[in-house]
Amino acid sequence: MKREELRLYLVTDSDLCLGRSLEEVVCEAVKGGVTMVQLREKSASTRTFVELAQRLKPVCKAAGVPLIINDRLDVALVVDADGVHIGQSDMPYEVARRILGPDKIIGLSVENFDDLERANALDVDYVGISPVYGTPTKTDTAEPFGLEGLRRAVELSIHPTVAIGGMNASTVGDVVAVGTDGVAVVSAICSAPSPRTASQELLGVINEHLCER
Amino acid sequence: MKREELRLYLVTDSDLCLGRSLEEVVCEAVKGGVTMVQLREKSASTRTFVELAQRLKPVCKAAGVPLIINDRLDVALVVDADGVHIGQSDMPYEVARRILGPDKIIGLSVENFDDLERANALDVDYVGISPVYGTPTKTDTAEPFGLEGLRRAVELSIHPTVAIGGMNASTVGDVVAVGTDGVAVVSAICSAPSPRTASQELLGVINEHLCER
Repeated sequence: MKREELRLYLVTDSDLCLGRSLEEVVCEAVKGGVTMVQLREKSASTRTFVELAQRLKPVCKAAGVPLIINDRLDVALVVDADGVHIGQSDMPYEVARRILGPDKIIGLSVENFDDLERANALDVDYVGISPVYGTPTKTDTAEPFGLEGLRRAVELSIHPTVAIGGMNASTVGDVVAVGTDGVAVVSAICSAPSPRTASQELLGVINEHLCER
Repeated sequence: MKREELRLYLVTDSDLCLGRSLEEVVCEAVKGGVTMVQLREKSASTRTFVELAQRLKPVCKAAGVPLIINDRLDVALVVDADGVHIGQSDMPYEVARRILGPDKIIGLSVENFDDLERANALDVDYVGISPVYGTPTKTDTAEPFGLEGLRRAVELSIHPTVAIGGMNASTVGDVVAVGTDGVAVVSAICSAPSPRTASQELLGVINEHLCER
Protein backbone atom coordinates (compact mmCIF):
# COMPACT_ATOMS: atom_id res chain seq x y z
CA MET A 1 0.00 0.00 0.00
CA LYS A 2 1.23 3.46 -0.83
CA ARG A 3 1.06 5.97 1.99
CA GLU A 4 -0.57 8.45 -0.43
CA GLU A 5 -3.54 6.15 -0.80
CA LEU A 6 -4.65 7.15 2.67
CA ARG A 7 -4.95 10.79 1.72
CA LEU A 8 -8.74 10.90 1.32
CA TYR A 9 -10.28 7.68 2.51
CA LEU A 10 -14.02 7.22 2.05
CA VAL A 11 -15.73 4.95 4.58
CA THR A 12 -19.22 4.08 3.40
CA ASP A 13 -22.53 4.13 5.18
CA SER A 14 -25.52 3.23 3.00
CA ASP A 15 -27.91 4.83 5.47
CA LEU A 16 -26.26 8.22 5.01
CA CYS A 17 -26.41 8.32 1.21
CA LEU A 18 -29.65 10.32 1.10
CA GLY A 19 -31.46 7.63 -0.88
CA ARG A 20 -28.75 7.36 -3.54
CA SER A 21 -27.21 3.99 -4.19
CA LEU A 22 -23.87 3.32 -2.59
CA GLU A 23 -22.49 2.53 -6.01
CA GLU A 24 -23.50 5.96 -7.29
CA VAL A 25 -21.98 7.74 -4.30
CA VAL A 26 -18.71 5.82 -4.54
CA CYS A 27 -18.56 6.36 -8.28
CA GLU A 28 -18.91 10.13 -7.79
CA ALA A 29 -16.44 10.12 -4.90
CA VAL A 30 -13.69 8.41 -6.86
CA LYS A 31 -14.28 10.84 -9.71
CA GLY A 32 -13.77 13.56 -7.12
CA GLY A 33 -10.41 12.11 -6.13
CA VAL A 34 -11.00 9.76 -3.20
CA THR A 35 -7.85 7.64 -2.81
CA MET A 36 -9.22 4.62 -0.93
CA VAL A 37 -12.69 3.18 -0.24
CA GLN A 38 -13.80 1.14 2.72
CA LEU A 39 -17.09 -0.71 2.47
CA ARG A 40 -18.59 -0.72 5.95
CA GLU A 41 -21.93 -2.43 6.43
CA LYS A 42 -22.70 -3.07 10.05
CA SER A 43 -26.32 -4.14 9.65
CA ALA A 44 -26.55 -5.67 6.17
CA SER A 45 -26.97 -9.40 5.67
CA THR A 46 -23.93 -11.27 4.39
CA ARG A 47 -25.64 -11.65 1.02
CA THR A 48 -26.23 -7.92 0.70
CA PHE A 49 -22.70 -7.14 1.90
CA VAL A 50 -21.22 -9.41 -0.77
CA GLU A 51 -23.44 -7.95 -3.48
CA LEU A 52 -22.44 -4.39 -2.53
CA ALA A 53 -18.77 -5.36 -2.54
CA GLN A 54 -19.16 -6.96 -5.95
CA ARG A 55 -20.76 -3.79 -7.30
CA LEU A 56 -18.10 -1.49 -5.83
CA LYS A 57 -15.17 -3.56 -7.01
CA PRO A 58 -15.22 -2.61 -10.71
CA VAL A 59 -15.84 1.03 -9.78
CA CYS A 60 -12.76 1.12 -7.56
CA LYS A 61 -10.68 -0.99 -9.91
CA ALA A 62 -11.41 1.29 -12.86
CA ALA A 63 -10.30 4.26 -10.77
CA GLY A 64 -7.20 2.50 -9.42
CA VAL A 65 -8.48 2.99 -5.87
CA PRO A 66 -8.08 0.18 -3.32
CA LEU A 67 -11.32 -1.36 -2.03
CA ILE A 68 -11.11 -2.29 1.64
CA ILE A 69 -13.75 -4.35 3.46
CA ASN A 70 -14.67 -3.52 7.04
CA ASP A 71 -14.38 -6.45 9.47
CA ARG A 72 -15.59 -9.28 7.21
CA LEU A 73 -12.64 -11.31 5.99
CA ASP A 74 -14.98 -13.71 4.24
CA VAL A 75 -16.49 -10.92 2.17
CA ALA A 76 -13.00 -9.68 1.33
CA LEU A 77 -11.98 -13.17 0.22
CA VAL A 78 -15.08 -13.67 -1.89
CA VAL A 79 -14.67 -10.47 -3.89
CA ASP A 80 -10.86 -10.53 -3.76
CA ALA A 81 -10.83 -7.06 -2.21
CA ASP A 82 -7.56 -5.21 -1.72
CA GLY A 83 -7.74 -5.61 2.02
CA VAL A 84 -9.69 -5.34 5.24
CA HIS A 85 -10.04 -2.80 7.98
CA ILE A 86 -10.41 -4.26 11.45
CA GLY A 87 -11.40 -2.69 14.72
CA GLN A 88 -10.52 -3.69 18.24
CA SER A 89 -13.64 -5.90 18.45
CA ASP A 90 -13.07 -7.56 15.09
CA MET A 91 -10.84 -10.43 14.08
CA PRO A 92 -7.45 -10.31 15.83
CA TYR A 93 -4.82 -8.90 13.48
CA GLU A 94 -2.58 -11.99 13.39
CA VAL A 95 -5.53 -14.15 12.41
CA ALA A 96 -6.61 -11.74 9.70
CA ARG A 97 -3.08 -11.71 8.28
CA ARG A 98 -2.90 -15.51 8.30
CA ILE A 99 -6.19 -15.78 6.40
CA LEU A 100 -5.54 -13.01 3.89
CA GLY A 101 -1.83 -13.56 3.30
CA PRO A 102 1.03 -11.07 3.17
CA ASP A 103 -0.05 -9.07 0.13
CA LYS A 104 -3.40 -7.71 1.25
CA ILE A 105 -3.81 -4.38 3.00
CA ILE A 106 -4.80 -4.65 6.65
CA GLY A 107 -5.69 -1.51 8.53
CA LEU A 108 -6.38 -1.43 12.25
CA SER A 109 -8.38 1.07 14.28
CA VAL A 110 -6.69 2.35 17.41
CA GLU A 111 -8.87 4.08 19.98
CA ASN A 112 -6.27 4.99 22.58
CA PHE A 113 -2.53 4.97 23.20
CA ASP A 114 -2.50 1.39 24.49
CA ASP A 115 -4.04 0.22 21.21
CA LEU A 116 -1.45 2.27 19.37
CA GLU A 117 1.45 0.68 21.23
CA ARG A 118 0.15 -2.77 20.46
CA ALA A 119 -0.30 -1.80 16.80
CA ASN A 120 3.35 -0.72 16.70
CA ALA A 121 4.30 -4.32 17.46
CA LEU A 122 2.32 -5.58 14.44
CA ASP A 123 3.04 -5.29 10.73
CA VAL A 124 -0.29 -3.64 9.94
CA ASP A 125 -0.34 -1.52 6.79
CA TYR A 126 -1.86 1.50 8.48
CA VAL A 127 -3.63 2.55 11.65
CA GLY A 128 -6.89 4.44 11.76
CA ILE A 129 -6.79 6.87 14.67
CA SER A 130 -10.34 6.99 15.89
CA PRO A 131 -12.12 9.18 16.73
CA VAL A 132 -10.45 12.54 16.33
CA TYR A 133 -13.62 14.45 17.07
CA GLY A 134 -17.02 13.30 18.29
CA THR A 135 -19.02 11.87 15.41
CA PRO A 136 -22.70 11.36 14.67
CA THR A 137 -22.10 8.29 12.45
CA LYS A 138 -20.72 6.03 15.14
CA THR A 139 -22.28 6.01 18.58
CA ASP A 140 -20.08 3.33 20.13
CA THR A 141 -16.77 5.12 19.81
CA ALA A 142 -14.19 5.86 22.46
CA GLU A 143 -13.17 9.23 23.90
CA PRO A 144 -12.02 11.51 21.04
CA PHE A 145 -8.24 12.02 20.65
CA GLY A 146 -8.60 15.69 19.85
CA LEU A 147 -5.98 17.49 17.79
CA GLU A 148 -3.24 17.33 20.41
CA GLY A 149 -3.88 13.65 21.06
CA LEU A 150 -3.78 13.05 17.33
CA ARG A 151 -0.44 14.83 17.04
CA ARG A 152 1.07 12.60 19.75
CA ALA A 153 -0.47 9.49 18.19
CA VAL A 154 0.98 10.30 14.77
CA GLU A 155 4.40 10.86 16.32
CA LEU A 156 4.26 7.56 18.21
CA SER A 157 2.96 5.44 15.33
CA ILE A 158 5.51 3.54 13.27
CA HIS A 159 2.81 2.95 10.66
CA PRO A 160 1.08 5.25 8.20
CA THR A 161 -1.85 6.93 9.86
CA VAL A 162 -5.30 8.01 8.84
CA ALA A 163 -7.50 10.07 11.12
CA ILE A 164 -11.22 9.39 11.36
CA GLY A 165 -14.15 10.75 13.26
CA GLY A 166 -16.31 13.80 12.77
CA MET A 167 -14.27 15.53 10.10
CA ASN A 168 -15.44 17.84 7.35
CA ALA A 169 -13.98 20.44 5.00
CA SER A 170 -13.40 22.89 7.85
CA THR A 171 -11.46 20.46 10.03
CA VAL A 172 -9.47 18.21 7.67
CA GLY A 173 -6.83 20.89 7.25
CA ASP A 174 -5.97 20.95 10.96
CA VAL A 175 -5.81 17.18 10.99
CA VAL A 176 -3.41 16.96 8.09
CA ALA A 177 -1.36 19.79 9.57
CA VAL A 178 -0.52 17.66 12.63
CA GLY A 179 1.05 15.06 10.37
CA THR A 180 -1.44 12.31 9.48
CA ASP A 181 -1.07 10.72 6.08
CA GLY A 182 -4.73 11.24 5.40
CA VAL A 183 -8.25 11.58 6.64
CA ALA A 184 -11.14 9.16 6.51
CA VAL A 185 -14.64 10.53 6.24
CA VAL A 186 -18.14 9.12 6.14
CA SER A 187 -20.92 11.67 6.10
CA ALA A 188 -18.79 14.50 4.68
CA ILE A 189 -18.93 12.61 1.38
CA CYS A 190 -21.84 10.13 1.70
CA SER A 191 -24.31 12.84 2.74
CA ALA A 192 -22.96 15.64 0.55
CA PRO A 193 -25.29 17.07 -2.10
CA SER A 194 -22.54 16.19 -4.57
CA PRO A 195 -20.14 13.50 -3.36
CA ARG A 196 -17.88 14.41 -6.26
CA THR A 197 -17.63 18.11 -5.41
CA ALA A 198 -17.31 17.33 -1.72
CA SER A 199 -14.41 14.97 -2.44
CA GLN A 200 -12.70 17.56 -4.62
CA GLU A 201 -13.05 20.19 -1.91
CA LEU A 202 -11.77 17.92 0.85
CA LEU A 203 -8.84 16.84 -1.28
CA GLY A 204 -8.07 20.46 -2.11
CA VAL A 205 -7.86 21.38 1.56
CA ILE A 206 -5.80 18.29 2.38
CA ASN A 207 -3.33 18.89 -0.43
CA GLU A 208 -2.92 22.52 0.54
CA HIS A 209 -2.03 21.61 4.12
CA LEU A 210 0.27 18.80 3.00
CA CYS A 211 2.27 21.31 0.98
CA GLU A 212 2.57 23.64 3.95
CA ARG A 213 3.83 21.21 6.55
CA MET B 1 -20.82 -35.89 6.94
CA LYS B 2 -22.74 -38.85 8.26
CA ARG B 3 -26.50 -38.56 8.03
CA GLU B 4 -26.72 -39.73 11.65
CA GLU B 5 -24.89 -36.63 12.77
CA LEU B 6 -28.02 -34.61 12.08
CA ARG B 7 -30.04 -36.60 14.56
CA LEU B 8 -29.98 -34.09 17.42
CA TYR B 9 -28.49 -30.83 16.26
CA LEU B 10 -27.95 -28.09 18.84
CA VAL B 11 -28.08 -24.53 17.50
CA THR B 12 -26.76 -22.12 20.10
CA ASP B 13 -28.12 -18.85 21.40
CA SER B 14 -26.06 -17.28 24.18
CA ASP B 15 -29.01 -15.12 25.22
CA LEU B 16 -31.12 -18.17 25.99
CA CYS B 17 -28.61 -19.94 28.24
CA LEU B 18 -30.11 -18.59 31.48
CA GLY B 19 -26.87 -16.92 32.50
CA ARG B 20 -24.76 -20.04 32.02
CA SER B 21 -21.79 -19.87 29.67
CA LEU B 22 -22.30 -21.23 26.19
CA GLU B 23 -19.34 -23.51 26.77
CA GLU B 24 -21.00 -25.04 29.82
CA VAL B 25 -24.30 -25.56 28.00
CA VAL B 26 -22.62 -27.15 24.97
CA CYS B 27 -20.46 -29.31 27.20
CA GLU B 28 -23.55 -30.65 28.98
CA ALA B 29 -25.44 -31.05 25.72
CA VAL B 30 -22.76 -33.20 24.09
CA LYS B 31 -22.61 -35.32 27.24
CA GLY B 32 -26.36 -35.74 26.78
CA GLY B 33 -25.85 -37.04 23.24
CA VAL B 34 -26.14 -34.06 20.92
CA THR B 35 -24.76 -35.16 17.52
CA MET B 36 -23.88 -31.78 15.95
CA VAL B 37 -23.41 -28.22 17.25
CA GLN B 38 -23.96 -25.00 15.37
CA LEU B 39 -22.56 -21.82 16.85
CA ARG B 40 -24.97 -19.04 15.94
CA GLU B 41 -24.15 -15.54 17.13
CA LYS B 42 -26.19 -12.94 15.35
CA SER B 43 -25.26 -9.96 17.52
CA ALA B 44 -21.78 -10.74 18.85
CA SER B 45 -18.72 -8.87 17.61
CA THR B 46 -16.39 -10.81 15.35
CA ARG B 47 -13.86 -10.99 18.19
CA THR B 48 -16.40 -12.53 20.58
CA PHE B 49 -17.67 -14.89 17.88
CA VAL B 50 -14.13 -16.17 17.25
CA GLU B 51 -13.44 -16.55 20.97
CA LEU B 52 -16.64 -18.55 21.50
CA ALA B 53 -15.81 -20.77 18.52
CA GLN B 54 -12.31 -21.34 19.89
CA ARG B 55 -13.76 -22.36 23.26
CA LEU B 56 -16.36 -24.71 21.76
CA LYS B 57 -13.94 -26.43 19.40
CA PRO B 58 -12.12 -28.63 21.93
CA VAL B 59 -15.44 -29.47 23.62
CA CYS B 60 -16.91 -30.70 20.33
CA LYS B 61 -13.71 -32.35 19.20
CA ALA B 62 -13.39 -34.33 22.42
CA ALA B 63 -16.95 -35.55 21.96
CA GLY B 64 -16.47 -36.33 18.26
CA VAL B 65 -19.29 -33.93 17.40
CA PRO B 66 -18.95 -31.63 14.35
CA LEU B 67 -18.82 -27.91 15.10
CA ILE B 68 -20.63 -25.84 12.49
CA ILE B 69 -20.46 -22.04 12.28
CA ASN B 70 -23.53 -20.05 11.33
CA ASP B 71 -23.04 -17.68 8.38
CA ARG B 72 -19.47 -16.52 9.07
CA LEU B 73 -17.06 -18.28 6.76
CA ASP B 74 -14.19 -16.25 8.17
CA VAL B 75 -14.87 -17.48 11.68
CA ALA B 76 -15.09 -21.05 10.36
CA LEU B 77 -11.74 -20.64 8.60
CA VAL B 78 -10.05 -19.14 11.63
CA VAL B 79 -11.00 -21.95 14.00
CA ASP B 80 -10.91 -24.65 11.31
CA ALA B 81 -14.50 -25.60 12.11
CA ASP B 82 -16.09 -28.65 10.52
CA GLY B 83 -18.35 -26.52 8.38
CA VAL B 84 -20.81 -23.69 8.06
CA HIS B 85 -24.54 -23.32 8.00
CA ILE B 86 -25.85 -20.68 5.65
CA GLY B 87 -29.26 -19.15 5.26
CA GLN B 88 -30.91 -17.61 2.25
CA SER B 89 -29.51 -14.17 3.18
CA ASP B 90 -26.01 -15.41 3.85
CA MET B 91 -23.14 -16.14 1.50
CA PRO B 92 -24.31 -17.82 -1.72
CA TYR B 93 -23.64 -21.57 -1.52
CA GLU B 94 -21.26 -21.77 -4.49
CA VAL B 95 -19.11 -19.03 -2.99
CA ALA B 96 -19.05 -20.71 0.41
CA ARG B 97 -17.99 -23.99 -1.20
CA ARG B 98 -15.24 -22.28 -3.15
CA ILE B 99 -13.84 -20.65 -0.01
CA LEU B 100 -14.14 -23.69 2.27
CA GLY B 101 -13.21 -26.42 -0.19
CA PRO B 102 -14.83 -29.78 -0.88
CA ASP B 103 -14.27 -31.41 2.50
CA LYS B 104 -16.13 -29.07 4.84
CA ILE B 105 -19.78 -29.54 5.75
CA ILE B 106 -22.10 -26.91 4.29
CA GLY B 107 -25.71 -26.88 5.35
CA LEU B 108 -28.32 -24.62 3.82
CA SER B 109 -31.61 -23.38 5.27
CA VAL B 110 -34.62 -23.73 3.01
CA GLU B 111 -37.70 -21.73 3.92
CA ASN B 112 -40.05 -22.82 1.13
CA PHE B 113 -40.34 -25.26 -1.75
CA ASP B 114 -38.60 -22.94 -4.22
CA ASP B 115 -35.55 -22.81 -1.92
CA LEU B 116 -35.71 -26.60 -1.68
CA GLU B 117 -35.73 -27.07 -5.44
CA ARG B 118 -32.71 -24.80 -5.80
CA ALA B 119 -30.95 -26.70 -3.01
CA ASN B 120 -31.54 -29.95 -4.91
CA ALA B 121 -29.41 -28.55 -7.73
CA LEU B 122 -26.48 -27.95 -5.31
CA ASP B 123 -24.15 -30.40 -3.61
CA VAL B 124 -24.93 -29.13 -0.10
CA ASP B 125 -24.34 -31.62 2.69
CA TYR B 126 -27.75 -31.16 4.25
CA VAL B 127 -30.73 -28.84 4.20
CA GLY B 128 -32.30 -27.31 7.27
CA ILE B 129 -36.06 -27.16 6.78
CA SER B 130 -37.09 -24.02 8.58
CA PRO B 131 -39.31 -23.36 10.37
CA VAL B 132 -41.46 -26.39 11.08
CA TYR B 133 -43.47 -24.64 13.75
CA GLY B 134 -43.58 -21.01 14.85
CA THR B 135 -40.64 -20.21 17.12
CA PRO B 136 -39.88 -17.63 19.76
CA THR B 137 -36.11 -17.66 19.10
CA LYS B 138 -36.23 -16.29 15.57
CA THR B 139 -38.62 -13.51 14.71
CA ASP B 140 -37.64 -13.07 11.08
CA THR B 141 -38.63 -16.51 9.88
CA ALA B 142 -40.88 -17.48 7.00
CA GLU B 143 -44.29 -19.15 7.15
CA PRO B 144 -43.96 -22.48 9.03
CA PHE B 145 -43.94 -25.68 6.94
CA GLY B 146 -46.09 -27.57 9.41
CA LEU B 147 -45.92 -31.35 9.63
CA GLU B 148 -47.50 -32.03 6.24
CA GLY B 149 -45.26 -29.48 4.54
CA LEU B 150 -42.28 -31.04 6.25
CA ARG B 151 -43.27 -34.50 5.00
CA ARG B 152 -43.45 -33.22 1.40
CA ALA B 153 -40.16 -31.35 1.80
CA VAL B 154 -38.38 -34.44 3.09
CA GLU B 155 -39.72 -36.47 0.19
CA LEU B 156 -38.60 -33.88 -2.34
CA SER B 157 -35.14 -33.28 -0.91
CA ILE B 158 -32.27 -35.23 -2.42
CA HIS B 159 -30.13 -34.22 0.56
CA PRO B 160 -30.19 -35.26 4.21
CA THR B 161 -32.67 -33.11 6.11
CA VAL B 162 -32.86 -31.60 9.54
CA ALA B 163 -36.01 -29.88 10.76
CA ILE B 164 -35.80 -26.71 12.83
CA GLY B 165 -38.20 -24.30 14.43
CA GLY B 166 -40.16 -24.42 17.64
CA MET B 167 -39.52 -28.02 18.57
CA ASN B 168 -39.40 -29.60 22.01
CA ALA B 169 -39.63 -33.06 23.55
CA SER B 170 -43.36 -33.29 22.78
CA THR B 171 -43.01 -32.49 19.08
CA VAL B 172 -39.68 -34.00 17.94
CA GLY B 173 -41.27 -37.43 17.69
CA ASP B 174 -43.80 -36.33 15.06
CA VAL B 175 -41.06 -34.59 13.12
CA VAL B 176 -38.85 -37.65 12.99
CA ALA B 177 -41.85 -39.80 12.14
CA VAL B 178 -42.35 -37.91 8.84
CA GLY B 179 -38.85 -38.90 7.77
CA THR B 180 -36.32 -36.17 8.64
CA ASP B 181 -32.83 -37.32 9.49
CA GLY B 182 -32.88 -35.22 12.61
CA VAL B 183 -34.08 -32.21 14.49
CA ALA B 184 -32.32 -28.98 15.34
CA VAL B 185 -33.26 -27.21 18.55
CA VAL B 186 -32.27 -24.02 20.29
CA SER B 187 -34.22 -23.22 23.44
CA ALA B 188 -35.24 -26.84 24.14
CA ILE B 189 -31.62 -27.40 25.13
CA CYS B 190 -30.12 -23.94 25.76
CA SER B 191 -32.89 -22.93 28.14
CA ALA B 192 -33.40 -26.31 29.79
CA PRO B 193 -32.74 -26.57 33.55
CA SER B 194 -30.30 -29.35 32.62
CA PRO B 195 -29.08 -29.23 29.01
CA ARG B 196 -27.70 -32.74 29.50
CA THR B 197 -30.97 -34.28 30.67
CA ALA B 198 -32.91 -32.35 28.02
CA SER B 199 -30.60 -33.70 25.32
CA GLN B 200 -30.94 -37.24 26.60
CA GLU B 201 -34.73 -36.95 26.62
CA LEU B 202 -34.90 -35.47 23.14
CA LEU B 203 -32.56 -38.11 21.79
CA GLY B 204 -34.61 -40.82 23.48
CA VAL B 205 -37.80 -39.64 21.76
CA ILE B 206 -36.01 -39.27 18.40
CA ASN B 207 -34.46 -42.73 18.55
CA GLU B 208 -37.77 -44.29 19.52
CA HIS B 209 -39.51 -42.80 16.49
CA LEU B 210 -36.61 -43.68 14.19
CA CYS B 211 -37.01 -47.32 15.16
CA GLU B 212 -40.72 -47.22 14.43
CA ARG B 213 -40.66 -45.74 10.98
